[in-house]
Order: sequence, then structure tokens, then C-alpha cells
Amino acid sequence: MANESLTRKTAGELVALVKSREITPVEILDAHLAVIARINPKLNAIVTLAAEPAREAALKAGDAIIRGEETGPLHGLPVGIKDVTPTAGIRTTYGSPLYKEHVPAEDAEAVRRLKAAGAIVLAKTNTPEFAAGANTVNPVFGATRNPWNPELSPAGSSGGSAVAVATGMLPIAQGTDFGCSIRMPAAFCGIVGIRPTPGLTPNYPMPLAWDPGQVHGPLTRTAEDAARVLDALVGFSRISPISVAPPWKSALAEVVASQDARGLRIAYVSDLAGIGVDNEIDAICRKTAMSLKDAGASVEEIGFDISEGREPYQAWRGLWMVGQQYANLDHLEEFGPNLQGNVKAGLKVTPLDFAKAEQARARLFLRFRDFFDRFDLLLTPASPVKQYPVTQNFPTEINGKKLANYTDWIAGSFLITLMSLPAGSVPAGKTSEGLPVGLQVVGARFEEPRILSIAKLIQAMHPVGLPPV
Amino acid sequence: MANESLTRKTAGELVALVKSREITPVEILDAHLAVIARINPKLNAIVTLAAEPAREAALKAGDAIIRGEETGPLHGLPVGIKDVTPTAGIRTTYGSPLYKEHVPAEDAEAVRRLKAAGAIVLAKTNTPEFAAGANTVNPVFGATRNPWNPELSPAGSSGGSAVAVATGMLPIAQGTDFGCSIRMPAAFCGIVGIRPTPGLTPNYPMPLAWDPGQVHGPLTRTAEDAARVLDALVGFSRISPISVAPPWKSALAEVVASQDARGLRIAYVSDLAGIGVDNEIDAICRKTAMSLKDAGASVEEIGFDISEGREPYQAWRGLWMVGQQYANLDHLEEFGPNLQGNVKAGLKVTPLDFAKAEQARARLFLRFRDFFDRFDLLLTPASPVKQYPVTQNFPTEINGKKLANYTDWIAGSFLITLMSLPAGSVPAGKTSEGLPVGLQVVGARFEEPRILSIAKLIQAMHPVGLPPV
Repeated sequence: MANESLTRKTAGELVALVKSREITPVEILDAHLAVIARINPKLNAIVTLAAEPAREAALKAGDAIIRGEETGPLHGLPVGIKDVTPTAGIRTTYGSPLYKEHVPAEDAEAVRRLKAAGAIVLAKTNTPEFAAGANTVNPVFGATRNPWNPELSPAGSSGGSAVAVATGMLPIAQGTDFGCSIRMPAAFCGIVGIRPTPGLTPNYPMPLAWDPGQVHGPLTRTAEDAARVLDALVGFSRISPISVAPPWKSALAEVVASQDARGLRIAYVSDLAGIGVDNEIDAICRKTAMSLKDAGASVEEIGFDISEGREPYQAWRGLWMVGQQYANLDHLEEFGPNLQGNVKAGLKVTPLDFAKAEQARARLFLRFRDFFDRFDLLLTPASPVKQYPVTQNFPTEINGKKLANYTDWIAGSFLITLMSLPAGSVPAGKTSEGLPVGLQVVGARFEEPRILSIAKLIQAMHPVGLPPV
Repeated sequence: MANESLTRKTAGELVALVKSREITPVEILDAHLAVIARINPKLNAIVTLAAEPAREAALKAGDAIIRGEETGPLHGLPVGIKDVTPTAGIRTTYGSPLYKEHVPAEDAEAVRRLKAAGAIVLAKTNTPEFAAGANTVNPVFGATRNPWNPELSPAGSSGGSAVAVATGMLPIAQGTDFGCSIRMPAAFCGIVGIRPTPGLTPNYPMPLAWDPGQVHGPLTRTAEDAARVLDALVGFSRISPISVAPPWKSALAEVVASQDARGLRIAYVSDLAGIGVDNEIDAICRKTAMSLKDAGASVEEIGFDISEGREPYQAWRGLWMVGQQYANLDHLEEFGPNLQGNVKAGLKVTPLDFAKAEQARARLFLRFRDFFDRFDLLLTPASPVKQYPVTQNFPTEINGKKLANYTDWIAGSFLITLMSLPAGSVPAGKTSEGLPVGLQVVGARFEEPRILSIAKLIQAMHPVGLPPV
């Protein structure tokens, strides 16, 4: 009989219990398999289960403990891998009919590192086709549902990972983030997600090897767990031409050591992207931000409109889409409308569009340099809208005002991507409907430990709990 | 009466003499001014002299020593800044008629750092228009000449810096490198130049702030001096979105400590770019490379043809040119033929060209990952041709075989740029005409100390001396 209570523990607790021989990796596995069996049919977060290889790995992980071997910081933990990230021997569809039977020969570097730290790949998690879209629906597997209310979307594109972690189907999961794809589903599902500084979590395989847009990062229930997974993912590698080592030794050690917010200069920005923000979300995020004064921070609400980056982002993303999908261009018409539209828009980008975009992007970065002279962290709503119906491709309005296109509502996220800054999403409170609200915490480059330390504090001060499952 | 013998000392020696109060910064300045007055009219390396502000700075630097203040590793050293790099209050023309009277208000970050380390900006050094071209000639100031033979080119685009350092007009100089612009003039003039890993020497101002192509680096007479200047230039800054801290503490300390090549795995590659190499240059470079066996290295000659990167480089460089010159596009017809041709080619690059180029570039990077599994350093001729006449825009043939275009001959350099790898050029010997031959030393990312350590060894084993002036 599986002990489902194990699936409510943090990754840190589970690893400690394994190392002290109080539980075995197989018990952890069975607990999570039980929750998956019970919940996944309703929510459709996990699209491929690797239960048998996971069991073998769990047995080996248990043996290593018995033999007293040196073990890693994720030893014996099941991990979910987003279905756009290749896993050796485990089906990886990219959410695309083109790849629905695809089984990679080689692990992505992120997967290799998670395994090296002791994690066990148990599941592939749902994503829109090639992660294009801030929802989680595709023609291969359909839609993933929000665990707080299955009629609603978990957002995306790492929606499968977010839902699996929020519900205890998995203790930790990996995601990728280009426009918002770790941050937004973390916000919609009430968990923690962090988009690291580009280069910190080496991105391989990747047709655009120099690209700082798409990064790998953790989705977890606590900030400490995010730091633990991040530590496993970061580090210099010759496999990626933009790979860099972090300037810090251990994000986890820094987050564990942090106690309060004394000395931190925090800015709260209501509407970074000039698209408006839902009034209730804004009120909750502001209140939580301001509450950090009680923990010793100075907190100031400022106006900081960076909407000038929206057009450059579209040009940049367009070129990215063409480069990313170059191998699939002959099958363009077989893609879904989101991806097809993205690539077609990208094919129209001219060198002048690119050049103009780059000038604007460089100017905007200097505004952030000035911002970080005044402040250590920028806090802003992770989403300008509440969880929308799962049947919708994307939200269509904010406070009753129509949105121009399907990426508009994530502008507050993708503009941070455009700047190559790290950012996390942490639950800041709940709406009147009882739904979690995410706060985006943006830091200067390589300030992941600071972002996760403040996330830990916010979780302690404003616990939102987990969805009833 | 200026003591010109000071201009034959290394930067390290000069700084030590200043710190021990044996000489003053003003004496150093006067010595270099005397050489400039005597030699620059013949060679045209320095295009703007800031003698008066430099004298003020030298007096202050002397006062700081007398007061026993803490001083930097370049304290009191005159430095030359390439004329494409902005210097506050000192004319910066970019070698372009469009900017011939331009006086920047702000220093480039590289200049700010050199000054912070104690260096004194004495001169702006000649460059082709906006550094476009591996020669050093422009309509504002004309051509710079090679100090080993004034009828020959010093190459470029940091030709002014290379010539000034080779002749003792300056002890150290800064340059920028996109295609070869530090390495090639260092090779043609018989000095040391290093192109650092992108991000290590923050590039500001820079309209393409994310670009890993153009980097700042030192040109010096010795490898130790290059390490000393590099240490002043590197370090994380929020001013650049690709800035990273080096994983090493001091390149100088590592280079000083290195004694031999024991344990190093070195590959000699005769013709990296598939364009051929002058037979005498090849023989000299091979012999020098093989001689490192005497210092304990394993050295193997291998074939490693990376010419598949040539087409991707052209697409990438084309887009770069449009982005870099975006502010000047209305004046395109006023540019010289090199730059005008570059920008016009760039305006024709399509998203498909870009995408195709990026796929090829990513594949090529993986070949280098494999290379660096087998070897620590790649040694290859820095130039496939000998110094060509100063009246030529570029060389036209290798071993009698015609070249296709004006950048072809630098393919062995620009392909290393394309890979975001660091590389130095070190004198490896002399031709039958008594002209210096440069060896390009390529390392994995962030391996600058290793590159400069082997350069130091090569200089010790194969001294080429300095041009007679």
C-alpha cells in the first residue's frame, strides 16, 4: 500500500529520509505512482510514464544507500521532464503529431545533470506543440487542466510539469522557458518556478545554440526545492557555446541561510508591459510586496513601463521560430495554428526589423542597468489575468479591455526574457475564487539565490497551500 | 632628454619601476612621446595624440605614488585606444569621414577599466572605417605601415595599436576583434594579441549589446603583459547583457606561474579554413608547434577542416553589419567600399539564411566540443599569407591560388570568432625576408590563461625580437 503522504513532502525532506534510510527510493516512487494513477486521468499532466525504468533506477538508488555510497542532492527523487526536452529511450513528442512516436537516443544536458544528481526520470509532462503558446494543449495529447479547478487552464507551456508538481504526482519537475513557460504555469498552479540567467543551465540539444531565449529551469512546491534543483542544473559545460558557471557556489545554501529581507531594496511595478493588470491580482501582489517591509526590506511602488520592448521581442522571437523549426519547415502546414503562425511571421522579419529591434533592446537593457542601481529586485504580477477556461487558447481581455494577440498577455514575462534577466514566480496569495496568484520576482543577472531567498520568505509569510486532490 | 630605453621595457617592468619610485609616470610618458615624434610620421599608427591630458594624468599618477596610495596594475602606463572605441573628451573618428570631428562624452567600458587600473590614455590608434577590413587604411587618416617594412601592411583592423606597441610608441594598447582584428595585426607586427571569450571584457557602448562577435582585448609585446592588461579588462558588469566574470582569478598570476607545457595536449592544424596556407608560414608554425614537445607537451598534427563555417559566418556578419550601422544607414553611400559592401550584403540576408547558418554553426560547435575532449589547445597559422603591400586593400592569393573575396584570407580567424572561442596570436618565428610569423593559439572558452601561458613559452623558446626603429 503506497504511502501517499510522502508526496506532500519537500524534495529536501525526501532526500534526507532516503539518506537516513527511513524510506527507500522505491517507496517514494510507489507513492507518486499512486497519486499519478488517481489524479492524472483527470488533469492530463503526464503524457508518458516511464514506470519500469524508474523502478529499476529506484532499486539501484536504494542499493547505493545500503552500500553507503556518495549520493547526489536529488538522490532517489522522481522527476518530470517536459515533453519538448529529449530523454534517452523515453518517448519525446514535442507535443507535435510530427514526432508522436519519436524516441530520442540521447538525453538533453538538463536531463543528464538531473540524473547525475540522483534524480529518476519518471514522466514526460505535457506541453503545447514545440512549447509555442502559454497554454498546455496539443493535438497529440489534448489539454492539461488546472488542479485548483479542472475547468481552467494551468497556463503553459510547462503546464504539465507545473500541474504534476502542484498535485504531488511528482516532487520536482523540469521545464523550459522562452516567453513565460516556467513562470506562468507556476503562477497559475500556485507553485515556484524559476527562469535562470541564460547560459547558467546549459541548453543542449538546441539548433540555435547561441540563443539566450530558451532556458531550462525547475518547477517545485518550495523555493528551497527550486534552489536544490537549480544547483543540479547549473554549471559550465563545453556542450553549449553560451554556458557559464554561476558566480555563486550553491543557491540552496544561500536560500537556506537567508532569514529575512533586511537591507533589500524592492520595487513593486504594477504594469510592466503597459497592457493593464486584473485589479484583484494587482491588489494581492502589491499587498504581498509591501508586506516585505515587515521583514526588513524597503519597498517602493514605482512606474516602470518597458512596453517599448514588445515590438523588438516579436522580431527576435520570429527569427528564433524560423531557426528553431528549420528542420521542420517542409512540414509547416502540418503544425498547429500557433506554431504555424509564429514561423510564418518569422519568415517575414527583415534585416532592418532585426537591426531596429536590437537597438531598442540595447536601450532597454540600459534602463534596467539604471533600475538595478536603485533596486535589488523588481516585483510584478506574474500574470495580468486570472486562470482562464481550459477550452480557450489564450485569454482575450484584461479588466474588460480586449487584447491584440495571443502573446500580448504574457508581455510582462517575455520582456524579462528579452533582457536576459533571471526571474521566478512565487505564490503571493489567493483570489476571491480561491485561486493562486503568482508574483514575478526579477533580479539582475546571476541573482538567482536572491530571487529564491525572497520567494522563500514570501511563501513563509503568505502560504497558499496546495490544491485539494 | 627623454630616456627612450624605457620604451623597450615590458609593462610589468615599467609598473614595478614606478611603484619602487625609480622612475616617474612623466618620464615614461616623455620616453614614449619621443618615440612617437620620431617614428609615427613614418608609420601613421597614432591618429590622435592626447599628450596634454596624459601629462596631467601622469603627474597625478606620480603624486599618488609619492603619497603612498594604493595603485592599480597598470599604474602610470600610457595606453593606446583603437579609434573605433570611444574616449571621453578625445576625438574618436571610427576612421570614417562621417565622424571625423566626433568627440565622445563618455568612455567605453574597456577604457574606463583601463583607466581604473591606472593606465593613461595617450593616443587613438588607426583603424579602417568602422573596423571593417583586415587592413588599416581609411579616408580620414590614410594607411598605417608595417614597422618591419613600411612598404607592407600591418594588417588590421587594430593595426594602429599593433604598430604603436611593436615600435615602442606605446607599452600597451587596446584593440577590438570581430573577424581577426586583434590577432592578425599582432601576427603581422610580431607581437602578442588576444581575443578573449565573448562577455569577458564587457562591450559598451554597443548597439548590438547581445552580440558575441566583437570583443575588446590587449595588444602587447609579451604574453605576460597581455595577461596584465586582460586582468584589467575582464570582470562582470551590469552594463552588458552578456557580461560574465572569468572563472579564474588572475590571468597574470597563472601566466607568471606557468613554467613549461607538461601534460598539455596540443594539436597543430595547418589549414583550418580550407583556403591553403603559405608554405613557408606553415613550415615555421609547424616547427614551433612541434618544439613544444621539448617543453613537455604532446603535439600532434591533425586535419581539422572547419570551412563549413564560412557561409554561416557571412550571413551572421551581414546581419551584424546592418545592426551595427543602423544609425548610419541614411549615409550608406558615404561609406567606403568595404563597409558599404558589407552592409548591402547584410540587407539581403533572409530569415532562412539566418536559420540555416545557425544550424551549421551549432553543428560546428559540437565538432569543437569533441576536439577539446582530445586536445587542450589548437595551434594554427595566424595568417595564411605573408605581409602584403600596404597599397593593397587585401591579399589576393595564397601560394599562387586566387582568393574569392576580401575576407577569405582571414577565414582561419573568423571561424574561431564564429565559435565564441578565445584565441591569441604569438610570434612563432621569422620568414626568409626577416618578417614575423604569427601562430594562432585557440583554447576552449575561458581558457585565456592557458593560451597566454603557452604564448609565453613560445616567446621564450623562439624570440623574434622587435622591428628596428
